[in-house]
Amino acid sequence: MKLVIKVTGKFFDSPGDKSVLSNAIKSLVESGNKVALVTGGGQTARWYITLGRSLNLNEASLDLLGIWVARLNAFLMAMSMPDLAYSKVPESLEQFLEYWGHGKVVVVGGFQPGQSTAAVSALVAEAISADYLIMITTVEGVFDSDPKKNPNAKFLPKVTTTELRSILESTQSIRAGTYELLDPMAMKIVERSRIKVIVTSLDKIGKLARILKGEEIASIIEPV
Amino acid sequence: MKLVIKVTGKFFDSPGDKSVLSNAIKSLVESGNKVALVTGGGQTARWYITLGRSLNLNEASLDLLGIWVARLNAFLMAMSMPDLAYSKVPESLEQFLEYWGHGKVVVVGGFQPGQSTAAVSALVAEAISADYLIMITTVEGVFDSDPKKNPNAKFLPKVTTTELRSILESTQSIRAGTYELLDPMAMKIVERSRIKVIVTSLDKIGKLARILKGEEIASIIEPV
Amino acid sequence: MKLVIKVTGKFFDSPGDKSVLSNAIKSLVESGNKVALVTGGGQTARWYITLGRSLNLNEASLDLLGIWVARLNAFLMAMSMPDLAYSKVPESLEQFLEYWGHGKVVVVGGFQPGQSTAAVSALVAEAISADYLIMITTVEGVFDSDPKKNPNAKFLPKVTTTELRSILESTQSIRAGTYELLDPMAMKIVERSRIKVIVTSLDKIGKLARILKGEEIASIIEPV
Amino acid sequence: MKLVIKVTGKFFDSPGDKSVLSNAIKSLVESGNKVALVTGGGQTARWYITLGRSLNLNEASLDLLGIWVARLNAFLMAMSMPDLAYSKVPESLEQFLEYWGHGKVVVVGGFQPGQSTAAVSALVAEAISADYLIMITTVEGVFDSDPKKNPNAKFLPKVTTTELRSILESTQSIRAGTYELLDPMAMKIVERSRIKVIVTSLDKIGKLARILKGEEIASIIEPV
Amino acid sequence: MKLVIKVTGKFFDSPGDKSVLSNAIKSLVESGNKVALVTGGGQTARWYITLGRSLNLNEASLDLLGIWVARLNAFLMAMSMPDLAYSKVPESLEQFLEYWGHGKVVVVGGFQPGQSTAAVSALVAEAISADYLIMITTVEGVFDSDPKKNPNAKFLPKVTTTELRSILESTQSIRAGTYELLDPMAMKIVERSRIKVIVTSLDKIGKLARILKGEEIASIIEPV
Amino acid sequence: MKLVIKVTGKFFDSPGDKSVLSNAIKSLVESGNKVALVTGGGQTARWYITLGRSLNLNEASLDLLGIWVARLNAFLMAMSMPDLAYSKVPESLEQFLEYWGHGKVVVVGGFQPGQSTAAVSALVAEAISADYLIMITTVEGVFDSDPKKNPNAKFLPKVTTTELRSILESTQSIRAGTYELLDPMAMKIVERSRIKVIVTSLDKIGKLARILKGEEIASIIEPV
Ligand SMILES: Nc1ncnc2c1ncn2[C@@H]1O[C@H](COP(=O)(O)OP(=O)(O)OP(=O)(O)O)[C@@H](O)[C@H]1O
Ligand SMILES: Nc1ncnc2c1ncn2[C@@H]1O[C@H](COP(=O)(O)OP(=O)(O)OP(=O)(O)O)[C@@H](O)[C@H]1O
Ligand SMILES: Nc1ncnc2c1ncn2[C@@H]1O[C@H](COP(=O)(O)OP(=O)(O)OP(=O)(O)O)[C@@H](O)[C@H]1O
Ligand SMILES: Nc1ncnc2c1ncn2[C@@H]1O[C@H](COP(=O)(O)OP(=O)(O)OP(=O)(O)O)[C@@H](O)[C@H]1O
Ligand SMILES: Nc1ncnc2c1ncn2[C@@H]1O[C@H](COP(=O)(O)OP(=O)(O)OP(=O)(O)O)[C@@H](O)[C@H]1O
Ligand SMILES: [Co+2]
Ligand SMILES: [Co+2]
Ligand SMILES: [Co+2]
Ligand SMILES: [Co+2]
Ligand SMILES: [Co+2]
Ligand SMILES: [Co+2]
Ligand SMILES: [Mg+2]
Ligand SMILES: [Mg+2]
Repeated sequence: MKLVIKVTGKFFDSPGDKSVLSNAIKSLVESGNKVALVTGGGQTARWYITLGRSLNLNEASLDLLGIWVARLNAFLMAMSMPDLAYSKVPESLEQFLEYWGHGKVVVVGGFQPGQSTAAVSALVAEAISADYLIMITTVEGVFDSDPKKNPNAKFLPKVTTTELRSILESTQSIRAGTYELLDPMAMKIVERSRIKVIVTSLDKIGKLARILKGEEIASIIEPV
Repeated sequence: MKLVIKVTGKFFDSPGDKSVLSNAIKSLVESGNKVALVTGGGQTARWYITLGRSLNLNEASLDLLGIWVARLNAFLMAMSMPDLAYSKVPESLEQFLEYWGHGKVVVVGGFQPGQSTAAVSALVAEAISADYLIMITTVEGVFDSDPKKNPNAKFLPKVTTTELRSILESTQSIRAGTYELLDPMAMKIVERSRIKVIVTSLDKIGKLARILKGEEIASIIEPV
Repeated sequence: MKLVIKVTGKFFDSPGDKSVLSNAIKSLVESGNKVALVTGGGQTARWYITLGRSLNLNEASLDLLGIWVARLNAFLMAMSMPDLAYSKVPESLEQFLEYWGHGKVVVVGGFQPGQSTAAVSALVAEAISADYLIMITTVEGVFDSDPKKNPNAKFLPKVTTTELRSILESTQSIRAGTYELLDPMAMKIVERSRIKVIVTSLDKIGKLARILKGEEIASIIEPV
Repeated sequence: MKLVIKVTGKFFDSPGDKSVLSNAIKSLVESGNKVALVTGGGQTARWYITLGRSLNLNEASLDLLGIWVARLNAFLMAMSMPDLAYSKVPESLEQFLEYWGHGKVVVVGGFQPGQSTAAVSALVAEAISADYLIMITTVEGVFDSDPKKNPNAKFLPKVTTTELRSILESTQSIRAGTYELLDPMAMKIVERSRIKVIVTSLDKIGKLARILKGEEIASIIEPV
Repeated sequence: MKLVIKVTGKFFDSPGDKSVLSNAIKSLVESGNKVALVTGGGQTARWYITLGRSLNLNEASLDLLGIWVARLNAFLMAMSMPDLAYSKVPESLEQFLEYWGHGKVVVVGGFQPGQSTAAVSALVAEAISADYLIMITTVEGVFDSDPKKNPNAKFLPKVTTTELRSILESTQSIRAGTYELLDPMAMKIVERSRIKVIVTSLDKIGKLARILKGEEIASIIEPV
Repeated sequence: MKLVIKVTGKFFDSPGDKSVLSNAIKSLVESGNKVALVTGGGQTARWYITLGRSLNLNEASLDLLGIWVARLNAFLMAMSMPDLAYSKVPESLEQFLEYWGHGKVVVVGGFQPGQSTAAVSALVAEAISADYLIMITTVEGVFDSDPKKNPNAKFLPKVTTTELRSILESTQSIRAGTYELLDPMAMKIVERSRIKVIVTSLDKIGKLARILKGEEIASIIEPV
């Protein structure tokens, strides 16, 4: 199978052993899968954006700072799999496609201002006609409202993009156009190319193979 | 002033003299403005996308074909201003910024799948903190409904992004997420960086300086 | 075997299914051949050159426009073979050699002003020590005069470069230095590296394997 | 004058306004100087190197992580001077020379494993035949022993490279080959190209022009 | 004026001061001209081609070795004019155009196998619409036969391309397609873009300005 | 095994067949080893440095000339192994790592001013976690003093880096910081990453496999 795994930048915020992710990817590759990994920026991204604001950078430049930190996280992960991963982090989708053609794991940070790493991972998944896009986040999966704000939010094992859109619209700010989880651009790509999205949490990294076999609970978003 | 001019790909569909655009840019530059130009793909883009569909390309690849035609149009315009323009067409916003630093006119086609050339021009305008983004399209400006479908559509000399969003939502398909004129990504950038957008038509290319001075009617979109 | 296939830009002028060419290449690769493909520019190239002339571009820039359209055709074909072909179109022979080293099909448009795509394909064939350069054109093969102008032209199944040179010199303009079929640069490369050239027509694309086995009639040019 | 300014990575560790450095550079440029800036990695570099060790990266990869953080700091500073600085951070000395030829401020992080940012700044100073290399560090200048370890260390307003070598050898570990302040590679470059080095501290950033005029105390290292 | 100067590779074969050439270029630039310089390969090129033959390289690779030596000569000249010249040597005409846009002297070695440095210089001259292409060679100018073989060869102050073609064809081997002085590709470019070519010898390098004013004898080739 | 082979630039100074080196590498690769090759500059490097001095180039530029000649030697070797080697010569360690990921022989000239090719080969060996760094030089191995100056120098089959450092310090100039054989930077890398170094001479190129099996005498340097 062709898999795109997107991991939250928060993964890189805590000290301690990060090999759980490289090991998970190694074992997916050994089972015959092809894998692309997309990394977020996390706390270091926020730190640099704060420094950037103190220097009066414009929004595009602030986004670029965040992208560069996400690329640093991507580079760290690429270096941790020297035999498996392409050693360079692509800086655009076209470059991603070139590296992907080498048959190796390609690790991506961000591409361009104005889009979330969720959108980046959807673009990557579309470009390689991925079987699944797996989003590893800080919550267990998709809920009927934000579980961080509402302790009674209900976990949804299966949800269509239409349902998800109305959940996000009713619980997050429409105006901003920057929903968490899946922003409008990611949503558009997922729908137009009918990408199957799985949402799960950081503590399930070691169980991705089981999730793909349906032996472990996670949310699945179905494009409609 | 710093200006971003976005010209519809339809400009390149008809035979005949294309120097009206290079001349307009030359004269804006001679009056002390700095100019970036963004070109659409037009009919040639549609032709290649048709060929691509016959070859079963995925959505990302079809978008890339369209982007490459837009870049071809951009290259044509760059070659037409050998002393004024940077000779290469940037393939990402970061590359655009590098070329822009040379103090020359930079001509852009597209950057990446999943976004319109309107979004590209908004990203460019944000990155250089442009004074105006001028969109040269096939209609006179913004109307209260699509003038191509509704002959009674009313011309709007001034409109806020909030008003425009509700016009587009009520007259175009929400679901698609691919509104004409300004798609959601372009809208988000325009709003977050408060970019002033002017909409005018192809037959006003020779009068851009007058439009900027307010001596010629065109629509202005105000970010709120 | 190592094969270079050069296809006339006219292949991209007509609507309809272009998969005959990608399928032919796939099957040649599956039979153990290594393939490089060179594409011409066709009618779109001529269209852009016309636009360029209206903008007073010099000869070098006009050639670059044609080259960029040939590269667009090359990109289309590369995208149509995502598992087989290198995703990027090389812009020089040195870049071609780098991509070729990946063991994939490499699709080339043009390299530089002042040379035909026939010359490009000869350069590529020389650089990889190709077994055959197959030129797919709009006529059945080599004739004793231009078959488009002379309905009585005689088909030549075998011809030496010396014989071909005298045919072209006597039936085309010497002065121009831009013979059709094989220009002087292509001729020089073919001769100095003793490249075997096969000339056949678009309707034989599905029969390339048979042509290589000598089971189908086509012209062969022998370097002397 | 041509100046290379090297600032310790610790400058980026603390929150708060970083514009003191960009302002200092702006004012040096306005007075007619040409400036290259080299940034260290600081605490973020150390954090990523810690993560890298947990992933068993080799020494070369760990150095590359540190270099990428230094480049991130460089990128932040380049973005803070959009009109003055080249927008890209060079990744090798040859790339630095290409960017430097644009007449702009060029901001450098690191070039390659196995060398300190002091060595990088010496290489840069040599390549542009700089008048001065100014090292902005956490101490006031050069002392007769490490002022961080010895509170009685004596400040040295002037010191030759020969004297400094013997101070560093007697107070730091020879074996390691990684002296602080100036490592052997930096020392070799400084001596062979007779580069004049000024050492001063972070709180003097606003007074660089005065230091260059000799109106402010700082240490000067003279190559012999 | 825009000038392309092509200097024979033999210039780099002898020891001694090479500054005569950089000085000549500096003074042309100071008088308001824009200059591109093209360098040949000389004896070092021949040495590497000999080594390459002993390793059984094909013709394309042997040409690439010669090109790389010509680029080395170009790099030497670029380094000798650090304030005037672009620091990188372009590897294709498109790269040349990008560097040329910087308003600096650009120094070129070679572009691609199968063409002489005379052809490279003609391509460069065409691309920038040069006023003159000055070829600095080992003989005084154009003669009615090869002056190295025929001591009675008559010097020709003025010659058309048509005349020169018949001189070269009658005194050099037609078959080879590799005439000295101007090969067929160079000739084609010179004619189609009507480039004025001046031929002079190494000992006139210090007098280029005088030659351009017609105060010093040299041959001029007129395109017809 | 992973092997880095560094060959003295003097290998390219003499005429005659250079295939002994490509053949040795081919046979090592066929036995299952992965090989990187680093080439010195030799006499041609010295010739260009002499020309450069006559043009008053600074030390950085002179080093770059030497690096470019070493890269030319590297290119020659890469071209001599078209099926085995990556066709491009990397210009930095990061580029080396990218090419190395292709599973091919990568041939390196130099990376940057201020370091010997011995340092380059140590950096490469560290980056790929090589099993051995084999230095092919003009002498049989390591001696207790420079064998070129002292005919009674004693051959040392085994030596620690500590012992070698004291031999080099006592027999070469400390000040220069540019010991032959292993300079301080190479020494630092070898020690920090505990790289095993073998030193042997040009006439043993055909016997590298035997040396690695311990069947042929050579010096081995052990990092401590
Ligand atoms: N309210 C409206 N006001 C103005 N135009 C509208 C409106 N609603 C829809 N449109 C349509 O938007 C079109 C312009 O947007 P569009 O995205 O097609 O860009 P374009 O100028 O054709 O450039 P491109 O080459 O990038 O497609 C107009 O031709 C018009 O038909
Ligand atoms: N003796 C000849 N034998 C065959 N074809 C000839 C001969 N003389 C002239 N031609 C012409 O050469 C043409 C093919 O060469 P041409 O250079 O036009 O390439 P092409 O296949 O059209 O590709 P491209 O897209 O590169 O132009 C034929 O269409 C034919 O009319
Ligand atoms: N004799 C000395 N004089 C001055 N400083 C010395 C001396 N000996 C040791 N040092 C130490 O050198 C340190 C500065 O060198 P160091 O290489 O750490 O650079 P840095 O400014 O911290 O930049 P970077 O971010 O590149 O590490 C000082 O903080 C000081 O403690
Ligand atoms: N009719 C002629 N007039 C002048 N020179 C001629 C003529 N016929 C042949 N030549 C030869 O042409 C040579 C110059 O052309 P050539 O192509 O060798 O260029 P070059 O200046 O040596 O540069 P490069 O380094 O590119 O080889 C002269 O040395 C001369 O011997
Ligand atoms: N103790 C020693 N043992 C061996 N060789 C030594 C010793 N001391 C000095 N040398 C010298 O070191 C030289 C080899 O090192 P050198 O740095 O010159 O590399 P090289 O093999 O010539 O390659 P390059 O082309 O990179 O210069 C030998 O020729 C020898 O004269
Ligand atoms: Co449209
Ligand atoms: Co590759
Ligand atoms: Co430090
Ligand atoms: Co530039
Ligand atoms: Co010659
Ligand atoms: Co040496
Ligand atoms: Mg044709
Ligand atoms: Mg030596």
